[in-house]
Amino acid sequence: MQPTGHLRGDAVRVGGDARQRFYDARGYGRPLDGNEIALSRVEAAHLLFRGDLSGIELGGDAAGVSGGDPVGFERFFVASAAAADRFAVRFLVYSDLRDRGFYLSPAREPWPGGSDAPGDAVDFVAYERGETPDTGKVKYPIRVVGERESVAAAGLAGRTLAVVDEESDITYFAAEGGAVDGATDYEPPADLSGVLLADRVVVWDAPEGLYERGFYGRPLTGRAADVEGALQLSLVEAASLVADGRLALSTSVGDEGGVAGDDAARIVARGREVEGDRFDRRLAVYERLRGADAVPKTGFKFGADFRTYLDVETVEDLPHSEHLVRVVEADHRFSPRELSLDVRLAGGVRKEMVFAVTSVGGGGRGARAADWVRAADVEWVSVDRLTP
Amino acid sequence: MQPTGHLRGDAVRVGGDARQRFYDARGYGRPLDGNEIALSRVEAAHLLFRGDLSGIELGGDAAGVSGGDPVGFERFFVASAAAADRFAVRFLVYSDLRDRGFYLSPAREPWPGGSDAPGDAVDFVAYERGETPDTGKVKYPIRVVGERESVAAAGLAGRTLAVVDEESDITYFAAEGGAVDGATDYEPPADLSGVLLADRVVVWDAPEGLYERGFYGRPLTGRAADVEGALQLSLVEAASLVADGRLALSTSVGDEGGVAGDDAARIVARGREVEGDRFDRRLAVYERLRGADAVPKTGFKFGADFRTYLDVETVEDLPHSEHLVRVVEADHRFSPRELSLDVRLAGGVRKEMVFAVTSVGGGGRGARAADWVRAADVEWVSVDRLTP
Repeated sequence: MQPTGHLRGDAVRVGGDARQRFYDARGYGRPLDGNEIALSRVEAAHLLFRGDLSGIELGGDAAGVSGGDPVGFERFFVASAAAADRFAVRFLVYSDLRDRGFYLSPAREPWPGGSDAPGDAVDFVAYERGETPDTGKVKYPIRVVGERESVAAAGLAGRTLAVVDEESDITYFAAEGGAVDGATDYEPPADLSGVLLADRVVVWDAPEGLYERGFYGRPLTGRAADVEGALQLSLVEAASLVADGRLALSTSVGDEGGVAGDDAARIVARGREVEGDRFDRRLAVYERLRGADAVPKTGFKFGADFRTYLDVETVEDLPHSEHLVRVVEADHRFSPRELSLDVRLAGGVRKEMVFAVTSVGGGGRGARAADWVRAADVEWVSVDRLTP
Repeated sequence: MQPTGHLRGDAVRVGGDARQRFYDARGYGRPLDGNEIALSRVEAAHLLFRGDLSGIELGGDAAGVSGGDPVGFERFFVASAAAADRFAVRFLVYSDLRDRGFYLSPAREPWPGGSDAPGDAVDFVAYERGETPDTGKVKYPIRVVGERESVAAAGLAGRTLAVVDEESDITYFAAEGGAVDGATDYEPPADLSGVLLADRVVVWDAPEGLYERGFYGRPLTGRAADVEGALQLSLVEAASLVADGRLALSTSVGDEGGVAGDDAARIVARGREVEGDRFDRRLAVYERLRGADAVPKTGFKFGADFRTYLDVETVEDLPHSEHLVRVVEADHRFSPRELSLDVRLAGGVRKEMVFAVTSVGGGGRGARAADWVRAADVEWVSVDRLTP
């Protein structure tokens, strides 16, 4: 005969030999005085689900159920779904990780995992395989997310996301901090001159190395004599070269509408016209990547902002591009579906998906581009699928 | 010595043997009286670019250039970028398709391609390889789109999109109409009963075929006696079964907040709580797919709304899922970057990317779910990458 639990407040108490049977041997709950233990609702539901508890007395305070006879899994599940936040999705993730052989604790005081949890953004901690709650050896700090919730990008690094989709299937993502660090050795010349044409810049007589070694721009190749050596730069490439004092703008077309000032201001203004604030963030990330000796090129074909090459010797001999970078605002919240799309695509093309969580503050719009671009705050978060 | 052109209004006129040399032999421009032809700015720039025109006289009315000496490619390009809408991106696409061996015409009167163009949403028509403008044999009606523009989903079918990214690289997409058409032969029973738990429905005693043959839901498997046979349905699966009169809701949890009425109204209300109007559109598309004997399951892992199986015999022997379906509003505009992401991912997993452009009108919120779901208007647009 399996024991019965008693719901008291938000915990289920089990007496008898529960401490030895559930806590010591299998890492459920937390010890109370004597041999009694307290189980969180999710833990208790899981023991019911496995048939290791015979029932739970709800007491008189549970919705729609008058105290008395112990209830089974179905009624306890229904009552808990009404009483506890995100109960169903937390139960599904807890069960799945138990099935995979992990011991877990609720990541909140006074449960054993409580002290290890970074704030309220973690639901469970899963211990190293074979480890119990007393050891405190946490392998995954798990945040459970329903498919329709969203997750803050800032502070995500170090967490494991368990996303429960609408069909109750679970996808795990590991988020790590870090940075993109390259070894490309190229300095662009300081005397470039280009013309701003709508949302691109053409350098009519670009030195060969700018494309061949620095992988800036894209050649415009024709047969007319004056096309020889012409390079089209993207706005962000050009803005970066201008901010570094290497590129000057000559004739400009179409900027009669309020764009004035020095070259950096003109090109940034054009970028903001076509992309809004996003341009500032992308420029800051572009600069940061070039500063780390990586070569950022457009990630358009992958739906990302940039793909990056870590070590470019020559364009003829390009290495595989290792990262896809998506630039997001500091207060961005991921929709799990978008995260799933980005990470899946990156995996399919053997690249690492990196989010650049960017806030462009320092100085604002009035300041010189070179200054606010360098003052921007960029947090790198790489996200990958995980099989626990 | 190559001939010179003369800009008059928005066209460049070339005399001498131009008709024979450029129109008859290579499909540039349109014939005027005698041997003279008129070239669009893009066509003229391309001939300059190739060195087939020696220069173009701008006349006195071009921005910043006083009439007189003919100008070369660089100055004509800069002047045209100022004078003509999206000149740079249109030039890049025109050049690319010429390099690939196609003859093209501007898709507007009075150019030869004009009469074939469906409205103003097409920039060029590219003729079948080896065909000239007089034959009118159009292979691709090309819409040129800069990476930062957007494209209406409605009416996209039948067009070829040429997206110019910020680095001037071009990605082509073919959009086709069509529908998803399956051969799954399963009728769910009419006496199902489930409980609405947050954003899912649990059927505690589901008949085996519901999952095994209809691929509805996902089993909840435990050891407790009352879990045997429990199936979790997604809200959209449950709403569809309820609208068809096959599923009734018993105990419901957490719908004290304003959800009342019959089962269909309750479940649709819950769907709208968690997804807004999107739920209505997804339900309409789900119903349409089931009605076409296809089996829609969540596309979450692919960042889509649904993946579909055309012919399910049993769940043990599932075929490859052929389509990814994303549901969009009737007035949705694609961002080229999102389109690129979706289509790339679908290609990587050997599925066809299909957009369900959906307007849920008929009857609105007051009407019975079964009625407005069936009255919804769904246009299917499948999009794939194309190498012209």
